[in-house]
Amino acid sequence: MIKIVEVGPRDGLQNESKFLNTNVKASFIKDLSLAGLKNIEISSFVSPKAIPQMKDSQDLVGLLEKEKFYKSVLIPNMKGYEISEKFEIDEISLFTTTSETFCRKNTNCSIDESLRRIQDIIRENAGKRKIRGYLSTVFGCPYEEMIPLKKVLSSIEKLFSLGCEEVSLGDTTGVAYPKQVRLYLKEIKKNFGLEKIAMHFHDTQGMALANVSESLEEGVEIFDSSAAGLGGCPYAKGASGNVATEDLVNFFQRNEIDVGVDLKNLVMASQEILKLLGKESNSKVHQLIKRKYEL
Amino acid sequence: MIKIVEVGPRDGLQNESKFLNTNVKASFIKDLSLAGLKNIEISSFVSPKAIPQMKDSQDLVGLLEKEKFYKSVLIPNMKGYEISEKFEIDEISLFTTTSETFCRKNTNCSIDESLRRIQDIIRENAGKRKIRGYLSTVFGCPYEEMIPLKKVLSSIEKLFSLGCEEVSLGDTTGVAYPKQVRLYLKEIKKNFGLEKIAMHFHDTQGMALANVSESLEEGVEIFDSSAAGLGGCPYAKGASGNVATEDLVNFFQRNEIDVGVDLKNLVMASQEILKLLGKESNSKVHQLIKRKYEL
Repeated sequence: MIKIVEVGPRDGLQNESKFLNTNVKASFIKDLSLAGLKNIEISSFVSPKAIPQMKDSQDLVGLLEKEKFYKSVLIPNMKGYEISEKFEIDEISLFTTTSETFCRKNTNCSIDESLRRIQDIIRENAGKRKIRGYLSTVFGCPYEEMIPLKKVLSSIEKLFSLGCEEVSLGDTTGVAYPKQVRLYLKEIKKNFGLEKIAMHFHDTQGMALANVSESLEEGVEIFDSSAAGLGGCPYAKGASGNVATEDLVNFFQRNEIDVGVDLKNLVMASQEILKLLGKESNSKVHQLIKRKYEL
Repeated sequence: MIKIVEVGPRDGLQNESKFLNTNVKASFIKDLSLAGLKNIEISSFVSPKAIPQMKDSQDLVGLLEKEKFYKSVLIPNMKGYEISEKFEIDEISLFTTTSETFCRKNTNCSIDESLRRIQDIIRENAGKRKIRGYLSTVFGCPYEEMIPLKKVLSSIEKLFSLGCEEVSLGDTTGVAYPKQVRLYLKEIKKNFGLEKIAMHFHDTQGMALANVSESLEEGVEIFDSSAAGLGGCPYAKGASGNVATEDLVNFFQRNEIDVGVDLKNLVMASQEILKLLGKESNSKVHQLIKRKYEL
C-alpha cells in the first residue's frame, strides 16, 4: 500500500519567494485533499522572520482543522510545539540532518542540539500526535564532501530511538542516484526494515523518478512530493525542488499501482497558485494533463 | 561499456518546425563530437516534402564525411539508400514498427511492406555499411490500444534475421514505465541477449531516466538520446521528445560510469541551436550546467 505525503504547501511554498494569501493556500490544500491526497503537510510553525512565507501558519492551520485529511505540521523547536498544541493536527514533523555544517547553516545549531530539541518535543507530546522525523542531506550535502552511510544509519537509529514513528530520508539537494539509493536502502532495510521509512527526493537532476523506482523495488511504501513541483532548490537557483506529485502519481498509475489520486483534479488544484507565482510547473506530467484537458 | 547514440541532429531536429542553416547544423554536430559523443545519427535521406527540415541532408552529410566520429544516417527507402551510396558513412539505419496503424499513418505502408524495403536495402548494401534497425512503438502506440509482447519479440526476430546488426527499441510516445521495461527486457534477453539491443526512450512523462536505470540493471549497454532534449513529441504538442543526452550522461556519471563526454562542452554545443529555435532545453541537467558555468 503506497502512501504519498504531500509536502507542497510546506516544503514547496517555503521555497517560493512570494507570500500567498491565507485563503488561497487554504483552498489549494482543500483541493489537494479533494483530488485524493490523504496526507498533507500543511505548514510549519517557524519564526516569521526566518520564513516569512509561513507567517500566517496559525491562521492557515486554524482554517483547515476540521478538514478530513491527515494533517501534519513541521515544528522546529519548543516554541513551535507550544503553538501546535492549540490546534487539532494529526502529526508533527521534526527535523535533523546528517551533516554538521548543514545543520549549523540551516538551523544555527549542532546536530546534538537539534536531537535534544526533538527529544524534548517528543517528551512534551507524550504520544498525543504522531511524530515524523525528517533527516536531511542523506545522499549528499552542499557543504560536506560525503556523508558516510554509517552516519546515515546512526542518525536513523537515533530518530527511531527518540520516538519517531516515521523517518523521511531527504535528498535535500537532489544528488541521489539509483545505484546509491539501492545500496543505502539495502543497509537500512537490514537494520530497521522499510515500513517506517519515507523517501523525500528532489528532482534537481531529473533523476527523482529513477530513484523512486529503485526505492519501490527495494520495498519502500512512503514517498514525499510537492504538487506542481512547487518550490525549488535554495542551493541551485532556478533548479527543481521536490519531485512533483503529478509525476509521482502518474508513475504509480503507469506501474499499475492505484494511489487514489485523480490527476486532472490534482493539476487543477495548483492552477491558481502557479498563476499567482507567475510560473509554470516543472512537472512534465502536469504539462501533459494541462494540455490534454485544456486547463 | 556503455554506448550513447546521439540522435538529436536527426530525431531531435526533424521534430522542430524551424529549418536550420546547414552550416549551423554542421558545427553543432562537430561540437557534439568534440564534447565526446562517438556515435551520431547526423541526418536522414528522406523526401524533402515529407520532412523539409532535412532538405539539405546531402549537403550536411557531405560537410561531415571526413569527421572522425561514427556516422549514421536514417534511410526510409531504396531512393534514400541510393543517395547514401554517394557518401562515406559508417552506418545506415532503417525503421519499422510494431503497430500496423502507426506504420500506415507514419510511413504510408504496411509493416510487411516496410520489412520488404528493409530486406531490399540490406541486400543492396551487401555488408558495406553497418545496419541499425529501429523498431518504434515498442511500449505502446498512440493509435492501437496495446502492442502484445509477442508481437515485439517477433518484430525483433525479423529485424535480426534480415541482417540488422543492432536493433533500437523505440518508446515513440514516451509511455514506457520501469515495470514494463523490466518485463519486456527479461523476455528479450532470453530470446536474443542484450548485446545488440539499444533503448530509445522519450521523456514525455519524465520517466525516461527511470526506464534507463531499469534497462541498465537488466544489462542494456546502448542508449539513444538527443542533445539538449531537442525535438518534441508529434503526438503530444509541446511535450518532451527524446531523453536529453545531458540527463543521460549525468545519470551515468553519477552512477560512476564514464562515458567520455564532457557535460560543459555538451551543453555549449547546443546553445546556438536553442537560440535559433527560440527555446530552452527541457533537460534539468542542461539548465543546471548552464547556470553553473554562466553559459
